[in-house]
Amino acid sequence: MAVGLDAPSNVLPVAGLRLGVTAAGVRYAGRRDLTLLVLAPGTVTVAAFTRNRFRAAPVWVAEEHLQQTAPRALIVNTGNANAGTGAAGLATARGSCAAVAEALGVAAEAVLPFSTGVIGEPVDLAGKISAALPACLADLAEDRWLEAAAAIMTTDTVPKAVSRRLDLGGRQVTITGMAKGSGMIRPDMATMLAFIATDAPVAAALLRAALDAALARSFNRITVDGDTSTNDACVLMATGTVSMPPLASAADPRYGPFLRGLTEVMQSLAQAIVRDGEGASKFIPITIQGGRNSDECLRVAYRLAHSPLVKTAFFASDPNWGRLLAAIGAAGIDDLDVTRVQVWLGDLAIVQGGARHPEYREELGQAVMAAAEIPIRVDLGRGDAVETIWTCDLSYDYVRINADYRS
Amino acid sequence: MAVGLDAPSNVLPVAGLRLGVTAAGVRYAGRRDLTLLVLAPGTVTVAAFTRNRFRAAPVWVAEEHLQQTAPRALIVNTGNANAGTGAAGLATARGSCAAVAEALGVAAEAVLPFSTGVIGEPVDLAGKISAALPACLADLAEDRWLEAAAAIMTTDTVPKAVSRRLDLGGRQVTITGMAKGSGMIRPDMATMLAFIATDAPVAAALLRAALDAALARSFNRITVDGDTSTNDACVLMATGTVSMPPLASAADPRYGPFLRGLTEVMQSLAQAIVRDGEGASKFIPITIQGGRNSDECLRVAYRLAHSPLVKTAFFASDPNWGRLLAAIGAAGIDDLDVTRVQVWLGDLAIVQGGARHPEYREELGQAVMAAAEIPIRVDLGRGDAVETIWTCDLSYDYVRINADYRS
Repeated sequence: MAVGLDAPSNVLPVAGLRLGVTAAGVRYAGRRDLTLLVLAPGTVTVAAFTRNRFRAAPVWVAEEHLQQTAPRALIVNTGNANAGTGAAGLATARGSCAAVAEALGVAAEAVLPFSTGVIGEPVDLAGKISAALPACLADLAEDRWLEAAAAIMTTDTVPKAVSRRLDLGGRQVTITGMAKGSGMIRPDMATMLAFIATDAPVAAALLRAALDAALARSFNRITVDGDTSTNDACVLMATGTVSMPPLASAADPRYGPFLRGLTEVMQSLAQAIVRDGEGASKFIPITIQGGRNSDECLRVAYRLAHSPLVKTAFFASDPNWGRLLAAIGAAGIDDLDVTRVQVWLGDLAIVQGGARHPEYREELGQAVMAAAEIPIRVDLGRGDAVETIWTCDLSYDYVRINADYRS
Repeated sequence: MAVGLDAPSNVLPVAGLRLGVTAAGVRYAGRRDLTLLVLAPGTVTVAAFTRNRFRAAPVWVAEEHLQQTAPRALIVNTGNANAGTGAAGLATARGSCAAVAEALGVAAEAVLPFSTGVIGEPVDLAGKISAALPACLADLAEDRWLEAAAAIMTTDTVPKAVSRRLDLGGRQVTITGMAKGSGMIRPDMATMLAFIATDAPVAAALLRAALDAALARSFNRITVDGDTSTNDACVLMATGTVSMPPLASAADPRYGPFLRGLTEVMQSLAQAIVRDGEGASKFIPITIQGGRNSDECLRVAYRLAHSPLVKTAFFASDPNWGRLLAAIGAAGIDDLDVTRVQVWLGDLAIVQGGARHPEYREELGQAVMAAAEIPIRVDLGRGDAVETIWTCDLSYDYVRINADYRS
């Protein structure tokens, strides 16, 4: 079902990071649902978490632990999000960390927990993880990214992982990432788990800045359904196993290529989440240009991306540009001069001066809409700001998947 | 398909207002798609229009005419919204008014045009209306509300009209209204056309105040899909044919009963639109209490009402309260203390202290969800504000209707 998205291959290991997966029976017996990441000593880790006020227990614990010490392990389960579970949820998240810590001989605070799956179901994660941990430890290896990318999925249909090799001042470094997510996806954070690692040595403050900059052009620019999850997290780890002077300043000439490579990896993963959006049959990049500022570009972009009428028109391959105009006009820009608005489907001009472009013909629009990827571009005609986000259509299958999810 | 909504009967005429309908062939041959309302001299008329920046041509013309003189006629077509049609759209809207004005012997500015239907299709409304006008005039009568309510429909499955009889200071007055709308529905204004009339004499300023007060508790508190139409309008007409001193002050003891009756009529019509929402299989009143102010109550309410995950769970009759929590937590109340949040489905307490209520059991939730009407109540635990809105679920049929609408 995923739009233009194949299962990954050729995902490169990152020296200093080992992964192991196993079946812990969190929700379904026999399904690989538990992933352990073990980090070499000295690894620098930064992370961003959901802004949902109903944050899940593991999000609270992960953020707390991250403030206390450098992580040495991440434990990730699918099948249950451990969200809306109150004090018992916090206790079982802490218990999971303690179990991993004991097995690895590290402090409990050096373990970060992550959970994804159904919300609001009580779960004994600590018990299930303790029981499954020996198998997970036995599986640990640096080349288990593909297995891990599959083991963290929920309603995803395709595992998501990608690598880049970069030359930084004559040294080869690797950036590899994996992500999961396909519904309850919108920024702040986009709903998902993402784990990205590099073997480059990077100082914590600069790694944090790089994460924030890349997030603003990747996971915080996607939406499937406008819903924000309780469990989103994006973790960036630098093992520093490549022997080179650490990256510590944005003025370092190696930082530009590093940030570009990181942004590419995160954009690729973010777009993969949209391509695999629940029920998605179309992949839709939306670019809003000519705004006075980034904020109003994003407001128009998300208004289009969240409009059920726009999304169902894309599902139907129907160039119903009236619905595009209605959504643009409802985006809350009170002084928008509609006579300056222009709209393109791909390279085809469809709206000019607030009405149908004189040369537009329905069959031309249908030809663009027939493709699996349909870029929309809107010029607001009032400034120089530009923003791009990525979304998908709204199909029968979205309703089917989400009406059936718990049954 | 409409949820708990029967076709209206016993709709009372309003003396001084005649209606006529006919088939003008705007989009489909033979379908009654044109409605003319003729108002007695002295009728006081006020109106509210869509806040969408891409307002349709008839909205511009209606607002302009309303500022110039007291309306004597309204001309309403379905089949084409005359929106996104540029200068040609404005010309044909003005031409429609001129044609009606000539036939009635009134000024063109005394005619208000209204259109609903497909957006962005050029249309010769003036020509079609001119040709159909004799049949419309021949049909004029005070007891044609039901026929008119049917003739203004688009994807509606049931005509929407309702009446109330009130005793105001010993005199019997009537309020009758009709509305259309079932998709592209959300406040500011809710997407729809509504025409409400009373035979009570009411001064213009007080009629305006009554309209605004009733809107805030009816059409501006409903949502189907979060999309705002280009053509919304709500018109309130007071023919003043009942012989009594005019209502002119909010301090008049007759004003309270009048406003209550008007609000009831408008709430009934607004709820009918949601009950007949595209693909709706559930009617969902959402009450948010315990907010610091009305605005934050509405933010949480609309976040729930617009969440595709919440709406699909209702379609599936699945008490997936985790999705409710996720939507509440993502509503943008940054200092929300989730441990104070309580949630009820009907009278059933499901969430307390940010987690499942200790006495909640899944089968109890399922029993509530099985009904066609599912009230949600949320207490934010931070103040005294309360707001109620009405919405529906998101079903296969919503996607089908909107993927097929133009074909």
